[in-house]
Amino acid sequence: MEKIIEQAFAVPFRYQVCFLEGIFDLTNPLLANFLDNGKKAKAFFVVDNGVSNAFPDLLKDIRDYADAYQDKFILSAEPLIVEGGEISKNDEATFKKIVDATSIFGIDRHSYIVGIGGGAVLDMVGFAAAISHRGIRHIRIPTTVLSQNDSGVGVKNGINAYGKKNYLGTFAPPFAVINDFNFLTTLDDRDWRSGISEAIKVALIKDIGFFEWLEKNATALANREMAPMQELIIKCAQMHMDHIAGKDPFETGSARPLDFGHWAAHKLEHLTQYQVRHGEAVAIGIALDSTYSYLKGMISKLDLMRIINLMKALGFGIYAHELSGKELLKGLEEFREHLGGELTITLLEYMGKGVEVHQMDSDLILQSIDQLKLFHQEKVVADS
Amino acid sequence: MEKIIEQAFAVPFRYQVCFLEGIFDLTNPLLANFLDNGKKAKAFFVVDNGVSNAFPDLLKDIRDYADAYQDKFILSAEPLIVEGGEISKNDEATFKKIVDATSIFGIDRHSYIVGIGGGAVLDMVGFAAAISHRGIRHIRIPTTVLSQNDSGVGVKNGINAYGKKNYLGTFAPPFAVINDFNFLTTLDDRDWRSGISEAIKVALIKDIGFFEWLEKNATALANREMAPMQELIIKCAQMHMDHIAGKDPFETGSARPLDFGHWAAHKLEHLTQYQVRHGEAVAIGIALDSTYSYLKGMISKLDLMRIINLMKALGFGIYAHELSGKELLKGLEEFREHLGGELTITLLEYMGKGVEVHQMDSDLILQSIDQLKLFHQEKVVADS
Repeated sequence: MEKIIEQAFAVPFRYQVCFLEGIFDLTNPLLANFLDNGKKAKAFFVVDNGVSNAFPDLLKDIRDYADAYQDKFILSAEPLIVEGGEISKNDEATFKKIVDATSIFGIDRHSYIVGIGGGAVLDMVGFAAAISHRGIRHIRIPTTVLSQNDSGVGVKNGINAYGKKNYLGTFAPPFAVINDFNFLTTLDDRDWRSGISEAIKVALIKDIGFFEWLEKNATALANREMAPMQELIIKCAQMHMDHIAGKDPFETGSARPLDFGHWAAHKLEHLTQYQVRHGEAVAIGIALDSTYSYLKGMISKLDLMRIINLMKALGFGIYAHELSGKELLKGLEEFREHLGGELTITLLEYMGKGVEVHQMDSDLILQSIDQLKLFHQEKVVADS
Repeated sequence: MEKIIEQAFAVPFRYQVCFLEGIFDLTNPLLANFLDNGKKAKAFFVVDNGVSNAFPDLLKDIRDYADAYQDKFILSAEPLIVEGGEISKNDEATFKKIVDATSIFGIDRHSYIVGIGGGAVLDMVGFAAAISHRGIRHIRIPTTVLSQNDSGVGVKNGINAYGKKNYLGTFAPPFAVINDFNFLTTLDDRDWRSGISEAIKVALIKDIGFFEWLEKNATALANREMAPMQELIIKCAQMHMDHIAGKDPFETGSARPLDFGHWAAHKLEHLTQYQVRHGEAVAIGIALDSTYSYLKGMISKLDLMRIINLMKALGFGIYAHELSGKELLKGLEEFREHLGGELTITLLEYMGKGVEVHQMDSDLILQSIDQLKLFHQEKVVADS
């Protein structure tokens, strides 16, 4: 007897991504309403120390907020402060502390883990929430440009292991995401700028109109004006979310158009031991793949210069000496292995439209990085 | 500015559950075809030592099969033998060994982890596969009645932690499931019988016709006839899969009808440190909740006796002295906590139809267990 039963179903996911100022204002019930499960929910807060240092009243604000809305939820324990930045994804002890806490404090599938911080901390907290009880409700409160417009609104989580980025993780949509723009006010300039690279990315592969908007607002953004930054974040988050909802949210295929510029970025981050921030590395990766697209005859010299000039206007570096030709080719090979043997790289078919290719010409890659170095030196000259 | 973006999407899942004899017959390309990703896929096998002990040629069969189909896949390493049974879910070192192997042998998202074994081993292997690279393709080859008709065809995985069953885990559909009936021939009688309790369960809550079929085939099943067992497994697997596909596959709500009989079973397994097998505990749990349903006036005495008699005919125990009234009430409370404060228990509305209730009467629970003890003694008398 040989018999086959076909199993097929679709799992619906639904969550809200909110944008506001003053999440812990006692007059704003938004967070409390998310935490209200009708049974006095338990909530466990995990806070990035970068945020609690920049906002010394934050823990008190959380406690006051919990007091004010004690009919809706209770704090299951004091908020846990964790080291921010990529280091939080390398540190298994911190990860384990959060999983331990879910057991110790009885955080079940109808309770909440609330993460407040940058993308790395949220990735780590999200993974702990995803595997405890096969998934505890996770509310993300991203505090950086990058996490508010990109990673924080998506469906991935993870930690690093075996020296490999995001080696362990799952696809697990959050229960809700709340972007509070007030957290952006204390970011240092590098972090402010860093997240803009993902906006350049989606603009280049999906929306020339958004790219033109970025050109027009580059100076204001570089000057840290809040209004255009809010507009950028909402637009970029929307595009990121539309992409996820559109096709293959859990990435079962090989197509990863949102990885435009990322293969070289991953290598650079690793080479500099994450001293170069993710967004800074992505900017260089975009510059590289755009230059390659130009050398391949896919976009014009004028197009390429628009991209390079936008990056310069925003204050991005477009070259890093650590990213030698040799290291780049090695990074490409590692990326190929990471994808399971077949390479998929997004390039620019034209401005505002990405296209996937399955091989890269080594000579052109080397020419691209040389070209970037020249563009970079031009910048240095212009600055002096 | 306060703005909310609604995110909504559905993630489609699709997999085949196959039933056959002789999965490693060199003439049967079924497994090799699943492993064929078009790029000479890497496959890493993890084998339950209960199975490799019962089938001493199994590892050689796997190697020969890989040799025969080397155009489709390669073994990334020697198969890893792991201790079978619930102990495999308590042992973090074994779990970690599998995750380590994915890194060491370069098992990526387009490679495969193949688990061969009972439900516990498959749960553990499935969890390792689910979190490595955010999900490596996982093929399950269940080798017990219980895993072939129930756990192995579903979407859950997990390991135990903090003394709690399945504390860590995810919902992750397999890439494919292959049920090879030949593995059942060497099961001891307890394991052969054990899996039948899940068939009684789905019959009682969903399909009176299937219950009647079980009554008719009880003697043949107890006598280890293979034909009715194959029929039982396919029917039960189909019902389990239909249930998962039907509504809320990842169990975001509180409804868990398939947990009929399971709240007391969990407690009994824990009390006996898993010396009582899951299926044996479930049989007692079903007997208990059926008796409770009778005492509540939901089913007739005649109905109850049909259930008890079917279990006896199959050789199930229906009472365990470890499950005292006191421990039962404690177990109920733990189950309530596990569900997040509100209790949901499935009882029998009538034969072939489950119904959820949100409270249980302690006195009636105590009466139920006393009644079961009497039924149990009747059995002993009848046997002597």
